[in-house]
Amino acid sequence: MAKLSDLQELIATEVNELKFPLAPADLYEPIKYILALGGKRIRPALVLMACDLFGGDVRKAISPALAIEVFHNFTLMHDDIMDNAPLRRGKVTVHEKWNTNVAILSGDVMLVEGYKLMMNVDDHLLRPIMQIFNETAVGVCEGQQFDMDFEQRNDVHIDEYINMIRLKTAVVLGSALKIGALIGGADNRNALLLQSFGEHLGVAFQLQDDILDVYGDPDKFGKQVGGDILSNKKTFLLIKALELTDSGALNDLEHWLSGTDFPPKEKVDAVTAIYDQLNIRQFAWEAMHTYVKKAFDSLDAVKLPEDNKQALRVFADSLMVREY
Amino acid sequence: MAKLSDLQELIATEVNELKFPLAPADLYEPIKYILALGGKRIRPALVLMACDLFGGDVRKAISPALAIEVFHNFTLMHDDIMDNAPLRRGKVTVHEKWNTNVAILSGDVMLVEGYKLMMNVDDHLLRPIMQIFNETAVGVCEGQQFDMDFEQRNDVHIDEYINMIRLKTAVVLGSALKIGALIGGADNRNALLLQSFGEHLGVAFQLQDDILDVYGDPDKFGKQVGGDILSNKKTFLLIKALELTDSGALNDLEHWLSGTDFPPKEKVDAVTAIYDQLNIRQFAWEAMHTYVKKAFDSLDAVKLPEDNKQALRVFADSLMVREY
Repeated sequence: MAKLSDLQELIATEVNELKFPLAPADLYEPIKYILALGGKRIRPALVLMACDLFGGDVRKAISPALAIEVFHNFTLMHDDIMDNAPLRRGKVTVHEKWNTNVAILSGDVMLVEGYKLMMNVDDHLLRPIMQIFNETAVGVCEGQQFDMDFEQRNDVHIDEYINMIRLKTAVVLGSALKIGALIGGADNRNALLLQSFGEHLGVAFQLQDDILDVYGDPDKFGKQVGGDILSNKKTFLLIKALELTDSGALNDLEHWLSGTDFPPKEKVDAVTAIYDQLNIRQFAWEAMHTYVKKAFDSLDAVKLPEDNKQALRVFADSLMVREY
Repeated sequence: MAKLSDLQELIATEVNELKFPLAPADLYEPIKYILALGGKRIRPALVLMACDLFGGDVRKAISPALAIEVFHNFTLMHDDIMDNAPLRRGKVTVHEKWNTNVAILSGDVMLVEGYKLMMNVDDHLLRPIMQIFNETAVGVCEGQQFDMDFEQRNDVHIDEYINMIRLKTAVVLGSALKIGALIGGADNRNALLLQSFGEHLGVAFQLQDDILDVYGDPDKFGKQVGGDILSNKKTFLLIKALELTDSGALNDLEHWLSGTDFPPKEKVDAVTAIYDQLNIRQFAWEAMHTYVKKAFDSLDAVKLPEDNKQALRVFADSLMVREY
């Protein structure tokens, strides 16, 4: 079995070798730019890994793996416009470096380039794989819209939130594994189980991200602790707290949500204290753990030698930091 | 042979019956909204007509025809953002009625819905038809980018302009006919010839539009005569004039291009006078006629009974008003 890190390197090389037309420059330069910003190339590496796991020829999975990476970067380019984000991986975003029109149109053609790359599969897999790709793309768009909707609402239910993060981030992980599995020769049942592994793990990973934002070790987390609290982001923790608070604590929480000019440390400490009082960390940890367990149950059910599955267990362990 | 008008009506009914999910409402409502604005449904009707022409089952072409219409409306939704257009078919545009983020994301999912609809073809046609669809989508994006680029340039060559209008508007007409022909059972050669007919006719139609803007009968043209002149739009006429003018007339033309606050009638009359002096109308008419001829030559070469081709000749005649 190939190691994930080797597959990530292979994909990084292949991404660098992707060719696009020279003109119109403002259509294709932004694609090269955003793809060159790097990133861990986890999603395309999962396509290759799933193919490898079932004994398939990894070279046959390279173009679909690139499709997943190009698609993912298309969503980043358009999300950055919608989120008004100035930076992506420490570099200026496309709509800031060029302009919004360029980022819209360049993103559009990137989605099409994703479809072109995804079509490089054997004939008998073309329809099923394109269907997975369509469902994935629809899911990510729905997830992004729900995410934007939730920022305007104060009555978001936990189930809605979990569905949103599933659509926005987890579906692509599941689809990457399913597509790779099918190319590797997996039957439908095993491909579905692997997809389920990826999707549940994706939800768990996002819940972990919510927890780490408040309770993570600043040295290891790599982001500012409390960033979600400061931006009033509707995370699992905030939604659960709003759901649980009696009127007294609710008033407290709403006080801290209402303003934007509180001293940062004061706000983070105060909201964290409310979370602590309501035992939110435990609720979040349990929800996360439920999804980790669902992921491993799915992986256990895949019909493959234990050794082959080991790479995915290592991958899952590397995602879940277990320090909370 | 079915009449084009009947096929347009059939498609109008089918568009009304398209179903989209209820949630997220801001993702799917704009799709229903823009599709309900109407339009002549020419592109999807051409898919059906080409299928019918080759004796195919028109019902098999309905979903791909809808794909073309949904795709076309996706391009309108995103173009309207880029062009900052307040109105589309007399109604408020999506980015004005909702907001830009909604128009971006709703457009994205519309492109994916187009792919979903396009996949409803027999297995042996799936790959070739998806390839045509990919090329079409890339072409339209390239055309839109060139169009935006040209607005910032004063050295656009006529060949570049023709290529831009081919990509931006003609390619879809050609692809609609080619896809319909393939579904109808046409061989590759005939499908290509029909595509060529559509593409050349599309270029001719756009050139006619440039001419009519200046020389059209206001009662029949339906738009304000001189609109392109007032907005300094880089049409065939303006590009040709900039190419032909000696330094004297060029200075005159550049004077009228430099300001935005001239009295409208004065500017239209003055620029039209320069066009007349340079015989621009004749150049444009000849270019247009070259493409009409190319279109009919392609149609002549299609191996089908003359009666079957008649519907396409009637269609071509209906597009070209011959009043200039």
